[in-house]
Amino acid sequence: MTSFKTIEWKGRAVRLLDQTLLPGRVHYLTIRTEQEMWEAIRSLRVRGAPAIGVAAAYGMYLGTARQRPRTLAAVRAAGAEVADYLATSRPTAVNLFWALDRCRGVLDALPEGTGAAEALARLHAEAVEIHEDDVRRCDAIARHGAGLLRRARGVLTHCNAGALATAGVGTALGVIIAAAQRRKEGFIVYADETRPLLQGARLTAWELRQAGVAHRLITDSMAATVMQRGLVDAVVTGADRIAANGDSANKIGTMPLAICARHFGVPFYIAAPLSTVDFAIRSGADIPIEERAAEEVTHLGGQPIAPKGTEVFSPAFDVVPAKLIAAIITEAGVIRPPFRQGLQRARRRAG
Amino acid sequence: MTSFKTIEWKGRAVRLLDQTLLPGRVHYLTIRTEQEMWEAIRSLRVRGAPAIGVAAAYGMYLGTARQRPRTLAAVRAAGAEVADYLATSRPTAVNLFWALDRCRGVLDALPEGTGAAEALARLHAEAVEIHEDDVRRCDAIARHGAGLLRRARGVLTHCNAGALATAGVGTALGVIIAAAQRRKEGFIVYADETRPLLQGARLTAWELRQAGVAHRLITDSMAATVMQRGLVDAVVTGADRIAANGDSANKIGTMPLAICARHFGVPFYIAAPLSTVDFAIRSGADIPIEERAAEEVTHLGGQPIAPKGTEVFSPAFDVVPAKLIAAIITEAGVIRPPFRQGLQRARRRAG
Repeated sequence: MTSFKTIEWKGRAVRLLDQTLLPGRVHYLTIRTEQEMWEAIRSLRVRGAPAIGVAAAYGMYLGTARQRPRTLAAVRAAGAEVADYLATSRPTAVNLFWALDRCRGVLDALPEGTGAAEALARLHAEAVEIHEDDVRRCDAIARHGAGLLRRARGVLTHCNAGALATAGVGTALGVIIAAAQRRKEGFIVYADETRPLLQGARLTAWELRQAGVAHRLITDSMAATVMQRGLVDAVVTGADRIAANGDSANKIGTMPLAICARHFGVPFYIAAPLSTVDFAIRSGADIPIEERAAEEVTHLGGQPIAPKGTEVFSPAFDVVPAKLIAAIITEAGVIRPPFRQGLQRARRRAG
Repeated sequence: MTSFKTIEWKGRAVRLLDQTLLPGRVHYLTIRTEQEMWEAIRSLRVRGAPAIGVAAAYGMYLGTARQRPRTLAAVRAAGAEVADYLATSRPTAVNLFWALDRCRGVLDALPEGTGAAEALARLHAEAVEIHEDDVRRCDAIARHGAGLLRRARGVLTHCNAGALATAGVGTALGVIIAAAQRRKEGFIVYADETRPLLQGARLTAWELRQAGVAHRLITDSMAATVMQRGLVDAVVTGADRIAANGDSANKIGTMPLAICARHFGVPFYIAAPLSTVDFAIRSGADIPIEERAAEEVTHLGGQPIAPKGTEVFSPAFDVVPAKLIAAIITEAGVIRPPFRQGLQRARRRAG
């Protein structure tokens, strides 16, 4: 589906597309040690919750194997140490902890007497399984979503929920590219640039170009005009965290898109794996919203764009209320309101 | 009211604040010739419809006087030539043509036999009158608007409709600063950065700092969160053109603010002089929307932020439908819906 690989296992190392150099340069890093992986995650060379999880799992294997442990106990001790170290790379990335815990759990569950070589092989297999799981989940989301968009001729998206953020074809952008490829012609994507960090301009526009899908870049403030003029039949975005009632937190600027979409009668869809749903959180009001540093707003590419010392309010995410969401596209199918019941059924179905 | 002068007559020259250097540098230009004024308007060193009108009127006087015409006919000929020349500086600025026509009309109306010195004095007096008219109109708008906002503790604005865009205290920002100065404490302004050209980050944040008014800069995509959290009691913006029914064209990104304001129950106000109302235009559907060059979206400060060759959709303005506007603040008072009748009454009242 995609002409590039965000993350790939290559014999004895991980090959990572360095996203900090996009869109200017396509450069792949070869990661052989846990230190290199820590740095790649910390510096956002690899980003997006699912991709970070896969990277961390491979990083744990690389770091553990490098210590050449001779016994199961030594593999476990090395694995735990490497996992603790990698967990410090990005302190708020849930998928990072989840992937490391899953790998550690595999080592813990091995029967005593398992050899070190076998234990390392199981650790590697778990990383591969996390990777392949993500690929499959993305494919399923793309398939379900493309069905939903089969009559759409224009779609709007925000931020980057594409192959660059996952180990597969992506979530929202996977859906959009699959829909474009089914239609072949007369399909256009409007991509919000997504201030402050410009993931739309830098990454989504790049991915759409790689995929050969027609697109136009807009500033976030132009999205309402795109809807008003009837240029899009749907808005599709990813989500960072979904509450049990369907309220969906995503990159700042997603919520006003949903409000404008309702105003203009354009359906608004969320595309995300079920792992994004936090059933312990009843509604969006309980989702904590991180505030980011002023420099992300007052500077661009290191250059100041506002008076020195200007104060800033910079929430990183906003929450789309469930009532503005037409459907949530998951690997278990398209879920319609009421979401509380629909999400629970999907979880049971997905096992 | 303001600690800087956007445009000022100084004995034999015009003193202009060079806005292209803001917010990094506060530098005043001394303009002595029509060529210098043409360049200042063309290069956006002076911007904003009312300020451009005042600059053009002074420029016509400077250029005409420099030719040392000896007769009324010579003054008229020189004035017409200079006016034609200045009219080419920015081909779409309505206030530019309006101010030049008004000055030319003064020369045309002089009785034959008027001396050249007297004619030049009348031309200069007309430029001063256009300038003082704008100051008075801004003051009246600020006074009416501040009354409307007397209970507000937080206000959101978009783009720059301040002293930098006029010869007076500004329109929307004049209202906001007057409201802040009445309240003295517990008042905060949220300023949209206003992509693509960042007039909010560069100019509005700078003006608010000069005025000593507390403010926080946000990306345009954060405005909905500001409203959702109850941080503002009103949204106030300027307008570039208002149709007879109240539909108001303003900088791109204003319309989604009005939609979100309605969603969150926050009143949305337009502040603009009556000269902005185009009674010949029945509704916003008839207001032509300029599309801008791709580079304004794909580049920032000369640096690319998107893949080379990325296509762009870049409307410069959007139209806020009258039904989303709580009131239009003019020099003739605060006009409430229905706007068609209210605007016509105000026009009659203003003579």
